[in-house]
Amino acid sequence: MKWTDPPVLFSLNATRELSERIAQYLDVPLSEHEERDFEDGEHKARPLVSVRARDVYVIQSLYGGENETVNDKICRLLFFLGTMREGGAARVTAVIPYLAYARKDRQTKPRDPVVTRYMALLLEAVGTDVVIALDVHNIVAFQNAFRCRTEHLDTRRLFAEHIRERVGEGPVVVASPDPGGVKRAQLFQETFERVIGRDVGMAWMEKRRSAGVVTGNLLVGDVKGAFVLVVDDLISTGGTMLRAAEACLEQGAREVYALAAHGLFVGEAEKAIRDPRLSKTIITDTVPLFRLNPDVAQSHVEIVSTAPLFGEAIRRCHEGGSIVELLEGPSAS
Amino acid sequence: MKWTDPPVLFSLNATRELSERIAQYLDVPLSEHEERDFEDGEHKARPLVSVRARDVYVIQSLYGGENETVNDKICRLLFFLGTMREGGAARVTAVIPYLAYARKDRQTKPRDPVVTRYMALLLEAVGTDVVIALDVHNIVAFQNAFRCRTEHLDTRRLFAEHIRERVGEGPVVVASPDPGGVKRAQLFQETFERVIGRDVGMAWMEKRRSAGVVTGNLLVGDVKGAFVLVVDDLISTGGTMLRAAEACLEQGAREVYALAAHGLFVGEAEKAIRDPRLSKTIITDTVPLFRLNPDVAQSHVEIVSTAPLFGEAIRRCHEGGSIVELLEGPSAS
Amino acid sequence: MKWTDPPVLFSLNATRELSERIAQYLDVPLSEHEERDFEDGEHKARPLVSVRARDVYVIQSLYGGENETVNDKICRLLFFLGTMREGGAARVTAVIPYLAYARKDRQTKPRDPVVTRYMALLLEAVGTDVVIALDVHNIVAFQNAFRCRTEHLDTRRLFAEHIRERVGEGPVVVASPDPGGVKRAQLFQETFERVIGRDVGMAWMEKRRSAGVVTGNLLVGDVKGAFVLVVDDLISTGGTMLRAAEACLEQGAREVYALAAHGLFVGEAEKAIRDPRLSKTIITDTVPLFRLNPDVAQSHVEIVSTAPLFGEAIRRCHEGGSIVELLEGPSAS
Amino acid sequence: MKWTDPPVLFSLNATRELSERIAQYLDVPLSEHEERDFEDGEHKARPLVSVRARDVYVIQSLYGGENETVNDKICRLLFFLGTMREGGAARVTAVIPYLAYARKDRQTKPRDPVVTRYMALLLEAVGTDVVIALDVHNIVAFQNAFRCRTEHLDTRRLFAEHIRERVGEGPVVVASPDPGGVKRAQLFQETFERVIGRDVGMAWMEKRRSAGVVTGNLLVGDVKGAFVLVVDDLISTGGTMLRAAEACLEQGAREVYALAAHGLFVGEAEKAIRDPRLSKTIITDTVPLFRLNPDVAQSHVEIVSTAPLFGEAIRRCHEGGSIVELLEGPSAS
Amino acid sequence: MKWTDPPVLFSLNATRELSERIAQYLDVPLSEHEERDFEDGEHKARPLVSVRARDVYVIQSLYGGENETVNDKICRLLFFLGTMREGGAARVTAVIPYLAYARKDRQTKPRDPVVTRYMALLLEAVGTDVVIALDVHNIVAFQNAFRCRTEHLDTRRLFAEHIRERVGEGPVVVASPDPGGVKRAQLFQETFERVIGRDVGMAWMEKRRSAGVVTGNLLVGDVKGAFVLVVDDLISTGGTMLRAAEACLEQGAREVYALAAHGLFVGEAEKAIRDPRLSKTIITDTVPLFRLNPDVAQSHVEIVSTAPLFGEAIRRCHEGGSIVELLEGPSAS
Amino acid sequence: MKWTDPPVLFSLNATRELSERIAQYLDVPLSEHEERDFEDGEHKARPLVSVRARDVYVIQSLYGGENETVNDKICRLLFFLGTMREGGAARVTAVIPYLAYARKDRQTKPRDPVVTRYMALLLEAVGTDVVIALDVHNIVAFQNAFRCRTEHLDTRRLFAEHIRERVGEGPVVVASPDPGGVKRAQLFQETFERVIGRDVGMAWMEKRRSAGVVTGNLLVGDVKGAFVLVVDDLISTGGTMLRAAEACLEQGAREVYALAAHGLFVGEAEKAIRDPRLSKTIITDTVPLFRLNPDVAQSHVEIVSTAPLFGEAIRRCHEGGSIVELLEGPSAS
Repeated sequence: MKWTDPPVLFSLNATRELSERIAQYLDVPLSEHEERDFEDGEHKARPLVSVRARDVYVIQSLYGGENETVNDKICRLLFFLGTMREGGAARVTAVIPYLAYARKDRQTKPRDPVVTRYMALLLEAVGTDVVIALDVHNIVAFQNAFRCRTEHLDTRRLFAEHIRERVGEGPVVVASPDPGGVKRAQLFQETFERVIGRDVGMAWMEKRRSAGVVTGNLLVGDVKGAFVLVVDDLISTGGTMLRAAEACLEQGAREVYALAAHGLFVGEAEKAIRDPRLSKTIITDTVPLFRLNPDVAQSHVEIVSTAPLFGEAIRRCHEGGSIVELLEGPSAS
Repeated sequence: MKWTDPPVLFSLNATRELSERIAQYLDVPLSEHEERDFEDGEHKARPLVSVRARDVYVIQSLYGGENETVNDKICRLLFFLGTMREGGAARVTAVIPYLAYARKDRQTKPRDPVVTRYMALLLEAVGTDVVIALDVHNIVAFQNAFRCRTEHLDTRRLFAEHIRERVGEGPVVVASPDPGGVKRAQLFQETFERVIGRDVGMAWMEKRRSAGVVTGNLLVGDVKGAFVLVVDDLISTGGTMLRAAEACLEQGAREVYALAAHGLFVGEAEKAIRDPRLSKTIITDTVPLFRLNPDVAQSHVEIVSTAPLFGEAIRRCHEGGSIVELLEGPSAS
Repeated sequence: MKWTDPPVLFSLNATRELSERIAQYLDVPLSEHEERDFEDGEHKARPLVSVRARDVYVIQSLYGGENETVNDKICRLLFFLGTMREGGAARVTAVIPYLAYARKDRQTKPRDPVVTRYMALLLEAVGTDVVIALDVHNIVAFQNAFRCRTEHLDTRRLFAEHIRERVGEGPVVVASPDPGGVKRAQLFQETFERVIGRDVGMAWMEKRRSAGVVTGNLLVGDVKGAFVLVVDDLISTGGTMLRAAEACLEQGAREVYALAAHGLFVGEAEKAIRDPRLSKTIITDTVPLFRLNPDVAQSHVEIVSTAPLFGEAIRRCHEGGSIVELLEGPSAS
Repeated sequence: MKWTDPPVLFSLNATRELSERIAQYLDVPLSEHEERDFEDGEHKARPLVSVRARDVYVIQSLYGGENETVNDKICRLLFFLGTMREGGAARVTAVIPYLAYARKDRQTKPRDPVVTRYMALLLEAVGTDVVIALDVHNIVAFQNAFRCRTEHLDTRRLFAEHIRERVGEGPVVVASPDPGGVKRAQLFQETFERVIGRDVGMAWMEKRRSAGVVTGNLLVGDVKGAFVLVVDDLISTGGTMLRAAEACLEQGAREVYALAAHGLFVGEAEKAIRDPRLSKTIITDTVPLFRLNPDVAQSHVEIVSTAPLFGEAIRRCHEGGSIVELLEGPSAS
Repeated sequence: MKWTDPPVLFSLNATRELSERIAQYLDVPLSEHEERDFEDGEHKARPLVSVRARDVYVIQSLYGGENETVNDKICRLLFFLGTMREGGAARVTAVIPYLAYARKDRQTKPRDPVVTRYMALLLEAVGTDVVIALDVHNIVAFQNAFRCRTEHLDTRRLFAEHIRERVGEGPVVVASPDPGGVKRAQLFQETFERVIGRDVGMAWMEKRRSAGVVTGNLLVGDVKGAFVLVVDDLISTGGTMLRAAEACLEQGAREVYALAAHGLFVGEAEKAIRDPRLSKTIITDTVPLFRLNPDVAQSHVEIVSTAPLFGEAIRRCHEGGSIVELLEGPSAS
Repeated sequence: MKWTDPPVLFSLNATRELSERIAQYLDVPLSEHEERDFEDGEHKARPLVSVRARDVYVIQSLYGGENETVNDKICRLLFFLGTMREGGAARVTAVIPYLAYARKDRQTKPRDPVVTRYMALLLEAVGTDVVIALDVHNIVAFQNAFRCRTEHLDTRRLFAEHIRERVGEGPVVVASPDPGGVKRAQLFQETFERVIGRDVGMAWMEKRRSAGVVTGNLLVGDVKGAFVLVVDDLISTGGTMLRAAEACLEQGAREVYALAAHGLFVGEAEKAIRDPRLSKTIITDTVPLFRLNPDVAQSHVEIVSTAPLFGEAIRRCHEGGSIVELLEGPSAS
């Protein structure tokens, strides 16, 4: 199925900056829309151009804060997606750089919600045809919850290319800050070995328990003299990252970098980021850096833009083409 | 279909007070739940009791403000409804004393959303079987948008009984503050005539226009010497009500009362409420009075509780029985 | 999404004339179909050409009478739409110049049906992708009831262009025959002001009540010396229009025209149409004039064809393009 | 699942008589409803009692004629079923004694509709939970088309019991008037053998063809001296039945009875019925006899009431219980 | 809707040979996939190429035996169809040369399954857009059960062209081996008359019964001196075909051919095929001949390939075009 | 919602033994059904009793082997569930002691299927209301994939009670054979600590890698002198368990038990089970032990019956009641 018109891109206000970069990558301007807030707390958003018979992409990152809460952003996205159908869009894709509630993916306590599935139900209910997300916390939840089409992007090659020049000559280790992230770390390690063309080690943190109580951290794996990349999907308060760095340095690591797609930086994150034990914190632009002091951000945080990744994924959704190859390189199958 | 267990009632935190009164009416305690907020802006709510095979009612009023925005409250309601399904509830009813976005019911500008329909889609998506609402802004939108069962309650008999002793001997007129509300006002007028057993007049406000520009207000109908009840579905800033009162008094009205189910009282509402041209503002308890100075509320606002109405509607949904008769009296058919 | 083949147009027999004009506008012939009636009252219709992978438009106006009842026409439309799916149509659009049951849009009596929603359910059930309708009685019901795509067309510019030369030099007033139609009349007034480039007044009829009983009509607004256009969505017996004309003339109107998209002309409509108080009745061709004496129709009724409107809407659905601009002019947004 | 209240029965006007008998069987009164026709050809029907939480049965036979066409009756049924949902019915069953369009069950010509499936889609779309029908033309179509629950009743035991005393001592043969009906005839033959406790023969009619042209009828099977029961699902013009009788008598049959559940009697049916070659025509009360002269009906037609069958099926749907045993006798499995 | 890329064809392993021929007809290579079996009995299949935005056809014939059971093949097909959606296919068509369970099309015993409908439910559940099948046992079941699009192909012209030269000068008769197949035989007879340009007779087998017990076979129709083509949808053990041949020869038939689309050849089929009373058995390649001794197959069975039929149907689904004309010839309508 | 009749239990043949035990627990006999296999590889199953208006539970464990493959068992379950709907069951629950394809829960290679979700789609498609499963490989996949109700049971308390007397006085450690199972092992450890009232340690196996190649196993955690319980969801070839036992013993473990809900025992499992390094293998009866030599099973394997767990879960689904408390004990909330 081929489209003769270019894709139509909308960005809700809270994701404007990243969306501009995606639009630039695609050489397609962001289409105009109006987004009004009313005194009683309701809002109304509408496109200002015709979307009839077009292939539409609505970009909204679902991080909390700045002017809107997470739930606010979800409703704004849901209603705007619905509005696309109103206007006769032929296909509607939700591009969600940071997908909220990805960690509410199972019942950990009795009668817990399974919010990941509710997010799928809601996005589908308003007529979304495709959901594009990046480094979702639990890809199993993501791939099972949705019945509409999904595209899951990851930052592995992006980060590997970004960091390849930094690691120097000595040993390099990829570390997961907890056992649940070992799978993610392994996938990055494999990518990184391909990119730098030499062996990369693995390590991970465990909670040391005594009598059922967590008493400290345990580092599994050899990091002596190594350049360590602690890899996670997101950084919240930064505490987890800092504890991992600390453990690595104690075990003789040369230097520790923190890598995560989504930099939420809530609570005491700024303090963690500035801690000298973390040489650098590398994140992407899926969440704006509004909570960090710009100077701290400037000196301690490196931001890798996901715009080329989202842009290219949108292009391949629009024109056809392999997203497997986009993520894993041309030789993947 | 009969239930041998009583209904299970949950109230999300923001509607706690009204819910307590409903629970008291039904002589069924509110069931416990946990509602936690996380630092990153997400939340999690779960019931603390088994709902398996039960007839569950979740009460949440969707007003904006206090601690949560409108959109926040919508997501909290949607996720909690979903959680009921998780726990094996046999039937899930959303009781929504104030239904948000009821005025976003059509495309007034090109490519506008039709949020009323999206609300229906979202509530149905999480597995809601029945929606109970009260004095929804546009009942046509409400009755067309939902495909799950709905019960629409109204305050006509409630308000009529509350106000019947106040109107004195002289003429009584029901007024609508705009032409769109004439139907609602007429329905109240008919109920009120039945309740007080004598004629009640009708009046309504029009916008006076000149060259397409609104230049003032026009009162249609005779209010001379009358006790006037200005009837609307909600009070936002109160400006509309005040303009109507002004126009009525100019035309010789004896006294003007404002009646509306939902008292949002945003913006300069307090000033309007205190204006001596409004003898009294009568609302219900669907929206808490958190925005008004308690003294102002005490002296200028009367609150009629909807708890018996919601309670009895829940009872009839649970046990079977006529809601038509609940609303219109036993002789209705 | 682009189509390389032209759209395929079918017209069920009862809407043949209008459909021919639409086909002519689009320069696409009506595709052949067979429509047979059986002795036991069943019928069968089938296309006589392949519709595989095509963009199909089925035109059927749902007025009552002539050879088929309203319900008959509904079933014929539903079954034929289903048949399109059978034949592998890629997209099926129901073009319904007059949408029946649009006034059964809410529960006015206890336990009433909400037929507008049932119409949506039925049209969607047989696989309709898009519904195109014109001047539906209640656009709120229409926009909320359907979950498939809809396009709502209106006659405002069509009528405004048709009548612009007639109104002469003096004041012009648009009147609604009842309060429920004020919104529609205002929208026409705004369009008409744009078209004729000068002020147009507003007026409307109210029912005068005494003791709850309707005792007469009340005209709100100034029509003295004015050329009055009474605007409604449909003319049934014409009684409402005639009462409006009478009231306008009593208040000094110069001349009264009746405008309505759908001329049903049932009951004593012919008598109303011939009444000299109505200078002219202007309708469209959504309903054939089979109930009026041709001479009466000739001298008292003007018919504005909707074929260019439906034709152009079909073209823009097929090729993409703005229907907002079609309805409101190129500068709309 | 048990119901503590009795079932609620509604009958649309066109099936009033049979419905009264079903209600009598169940000792449950028909619930009142209102059914109004409007001048423009639309109608409105609504229940006059509360159906909230009840198990509702709506009876409507979909024959053509009398005051309403087949399509009319279909729409009336669909809308009324929808209205039941509006009123909060817990379960809605459509009881359709004669199911129209059952012979439009496949594409016999290119691009034909498959109306049997559309009927299923439409009935399900308005929220029907169960469909009960009787002797549907093609049970394969019926059992495949519906995704909601269905109950298919048949007249075999009803007719067998009714006719058992008539057949006398000599040979008895069951005949099908065409090859498509052989299966139905065989099933009746088996039931009849069980009921009368002796052998029953089989015969059927074939079209004799020459050079692809039908040149006459061919009777397969031995009917000499036999009491012949020609069995079909419905009688339309009666021509088929008459040709079968003629062929049987030519082959030496003693006497020929026509048996069919549904007596439509269209066209020249009266003439066929009165033809002396048919000793008697036995039908049920699923279609009223409005087209036959009452005297002809009185002397040539016997009517077996299906009320006990429908009544008992409704009882078993409501209370639980085996419909297999109802149809085939207590020993069936 | 036009596709700029060619269709993508996949064949699950069990239908490889026919699929190769279809691919050759279309001049489109079969796309690669991987199909692995695990020790615990599960399997996994995945495409090895991108299917994003493509028009995909998955070919799997659902015969039992060889390495996989019928149910095995069904699951393999269902999961692979689901996988196509995972990969972003724009449209997914299941091409099922032999559709299993087509004879489980109704409840013949109490509480029987209606497996034809379950097959439809399952195929639709995994996201199949179109199902293409050939000579399904009961086309009524097929056309009613599916709600996704279906294309039903038949072998009539294929077989007629194949056999036209064999029939010689004398009378030709098409025979059905049971009454349920008469309709199918008649359709073939009509096609064959058109192809050979002269009259073709009809005959069919009945079971002779005595006292409800089948005692033998009865041949209806004149086959004296005729070349007889016994036509069925499938050959299972061949017993039915053999009994028909026997009866025809007893009645003086010159020669008997067996024709059926699907050659399952289970049980004692080889013995039946070799029986000299059957001159030849003609089938298609929808089911591989793995159960017959190759020599027997070589000398007694002729195979007509369905590849051009499936290939051309796929082409017309992909490019648009009439399948009616494909089946019935260019003059059909 | 209460049921007055007891639940109806069916067991497909392959799960007969466990089902008998469940029926015994509930004191409800298994209802009779017929399950026939045909020569062409199709099968047919039907209930032999009425299920109308009943609460039905169909038990089928989806292990491979014995007479039927995994896929075979899936189809048998799906069709039989569909048949329950046919017979008018009020609610249908699939009880699946071993849920197949639970490890195909994500795309590990490009374009992989997500079979866990397809299983949900298929079970829902045939009308399943509730799915009850036990110790599913990945509970996140399970809880996200299904949109019908699910109940997930686990063996933690069952195993803890079974093994509590064996562990002796010394240290006790729960070990996971791979990092993906750490969460499961931790949950068992917590349960076990509660049951035996003292500390239980944790350990797990990691793959030791060198240059991206797995070179051996690494045991994390202290097992010196400990009684070690290696916990997994299933045992396939037993290799994983054996490697874990080996590593534990090397690190000084006193004794090693293998615990897993599902004993598939494929391939060389018997050899692993008999290996002296595994003191005992403890499994449940969700999969029959048909692949092991009975003597080996007798001496090396202990089977804990899940019948009380499934039985009680069915009772609570039928009567209402907390499954959280069933799994976690009465004090859970």
